[in-house]
Amino acid sequence: MQDNPMTAPASFDVALRAAQARITDYAHSRLTGADDLHAAMRYAMVGGKMLRGFLVLESGRLHGLAPDAAMNAALAIECVHAYSLVHDDLPCMDDDDMRRGQPTVHRKWDDAMAVLAGDSLQTFAFELMAEPVVGPHALAALRTLAQSAGKDGMVSGQMLDIAAESAETPLNLDQITRLQQRKTGCLIEWSATAGAVLTGADPAPLATYARALGLAFQIADDILDVEGDMNKVGKALRKDEDAGKATFVSLLGLDAAKKRASDLVEEACEALHPYGDDAETLKQAARFVISRDN
Amino acid sequence: MQDNPMTAPASFDVALRAAQARITDYAHSRLTGADDLHAAMRYAMVGGKMLRGFLVLESGRLHGLAPDAAMNAALAIECVHAYSLVHDDLPCMDDDDMRRGQPTVHRKWDDAMAVLAGDSLQTFAFELMAEPVVGPHALAALRTLAQSAGKDGMVSGQMLDIAAESAETPLNLDQITRLQQRKTGCLIEWSATAGAVLTGADPAPLATYARALGLAFQIADDILDVEGDMNKVGKALRKDEDAGKATFVSLLGLDAAKKRASDLVEEACEALHPYGDDAETLKQAARFVISRDN
Repeated sequence: MQDNPMTAPASFDVALRAAQARITDYAHSRLTGADDLHAAMRYAMVGGKMLRGFLVLESGRLHGLAPDAAMNAALAIECVHAYSLVHDDLPCMDDDDMRRGQPTVHRKWDDAMAVLAGDSLQTFAFELMAEPVVGPHALAALRTLAQSAGKDGMVSGQMLDIAAESAETPLNLDQITRLQQRKTGCLIEWSATAGAVLTGADPAPLATYARALGLAFQIADDILDVEGDMNKVGKALRKDEDAGKATFVSLLGLDAAKKRASDLVEEACEALHPYGDDAETLKQAARFVISRDN
Repeated sequence: MQDNPMTAPASFDVALRAAQARITDYAHSRLTGADDLHAAMRYAMVGGKMLRGFLVLESGRLHGLAPDAAMNAALAIECVHAYSLVHDDLPCMDDDDMRRGQPTVHRKWDDAMAVLAGDSLQTFAFELMAEPVVGPHALAALRTLAQSAGKDGMVSGQMLDIAAESAETPLNLDQITRLQQRKTGCLIEWSATAGAVLTGADPAPLATYARALGLAFQIADDILDVEGDMNKVGKALRKDEDAGKATFVSLLGLDAAKKRASDLVEEACEALHPYGDDAETLKQAARFVISRDN
C-alpha cells in the first residue's frame, strides 16, 4: 500500500481511499467545536467518495504542490460540495431523507441546522483557501472557486435543474449538458486544475481532462439512477424517471449513454498525455467514474 | 453636498446616503444576469441602510485605500449581510414576511430561491474580495471576513440565538453580549477595520470603535423593537417580547439600556482620537446608531 499519495502515483483505488481518509482526518482536526453546528458540519463531511478532493491532491502531486497547500484546497472543495448537498437535500429543494447512506442533516437535526451548517461549510471553504499555507497563488484559485461555485456556476446549475422540473417541455441535449457543466462540471474542473493553478502552471490539459470527466460522471450518475442499487448508492434512486425529468439516459437511450460516457473517458485520458506515466492514477479515476456502483 | 465621500469627511447623513447609492449602483452593475437568481440577488440588496458598507468606505478613506478596492470590500460585506438576512427570514428560521419594507425573498419567490440567492450572495462576496482590484492585502482581509462570518462568528451567533429561543432560562447579560458579538459584532468590526487591514495599517483603534459601536447598535435594535414604528423600521416588531426572549432592554430596563448605549457611543468616539478631525463622520455614525428610528 502507498503510504503517501503525494509523492508517487498509486493505483486509483488505493489513492482514492487514502485521499478520503486523509481529508476526513483533516476535516475532523479543523472542525473540533463541541456545539451542534460543528457536529452537523462534521456529519455532512462523512461518507462521501471525496472524488473532488482526490482530484485536487492528484493534480497537486503532478505539479509538486506542497502537501499542506493541497490538503487545504482538497478540504475546501469537499466543504463546498458538502454544503451544496446539505442545501439541495432540504425539503424546499430536492427533499431527500438519505444521503451517503445516512439521514440527511435536516432529518438528523432540523431545517434550520441544515441551512446554517451548509452556510458555514461554504464560509469555511473560503477560510481554508485564504490561509497562508495555500501559498502565493491562493487568491487566483480562490477567485475561480467562487466563480465555479456561485451565481454563474454551481448555484445557477441548481437553478436550471429546479426550473427544468416545472418546465412544460423536457430539456434537450444541449440544455442538459449546459446544466451539468454548471451544476457539477465547474467544481470538478476546479478540482482537477487546482494543482496547476496553485503552482502557476498551465491548467489547460487538466481542464480538458476535467470537462470530459465531469460530463462522463453525470452520464454515469443518470445511468446509476436507472440501473443502480439504492443500498450501494446510499440515496433514493429512480427519482428522475418518476419526475419525468430529461436525463442523458432518457435523451440518448441507455446503450448510447454508456457509449458516450466511455468515449468521454477516452478523451479525458488522452488529454493527460503531457504528464506521461505520472497521470496513471488520474486515468484510472476517469475509468472508475463510469464503472462505479455508487 | 459632498460629491466624493472618498476624499474628505462629510456629514454622516450625506456620507451614508452617498455610500448607499454608490454601493447599490455597483451591486446592480455587477449583478446584471437576466435570470431569476440574479433578480433575487439584486432584490435582496435593495433598501438596506448599508451601514457596514459605509464603514468600509469610511475606514478606507481614513487610510487612503484606493476607492475601487474599498468599493469591492463594501459590496462584499453588504452581500454577506444580505445573504444572512435572506436565510434568517426563511420559514425554518425566523419566518419573517417583510424586510426593509418589502416582502422577503422567500415570499416574493419561494423558499428554494431564498436558499440559492443567499448561497450565491455569500459566494459573490468572496469573489469580490478575490479580485485583483482589492490589492496586496486582499487575502488577509478575506480570511478575517470568513472567520467573522462563519462557524465561529456570525453563523454561530445565529445558532446561539435559535438555541436561546428554546432554552428553559432566558440568557443573562454575559450570554447575550456574546451572542451579539458573534451575530452582528464580528461583521461590524470587520467593516470598520477593513480600510486599515487592506492598507496594512494598525486596525486597533477602529476595532475598539467597532466593538463599542456594534454593542450600541444591538442595544438600539432592542430598544427599537420595543419603541419603534413598524412602518419606519420596515419589519415586524415586538417579536422578542412576544417570544419571551431576553434582550438588553429586558435585562437592563429601558432607561439603563439607553444609558448603556449612550456610554458605548462615547467609548466608540474616544477610540477615534488618533484620527483627529478626519474621523468626524465615523463619530456621527456612532451617534446615529442610537438615535435612528429604523
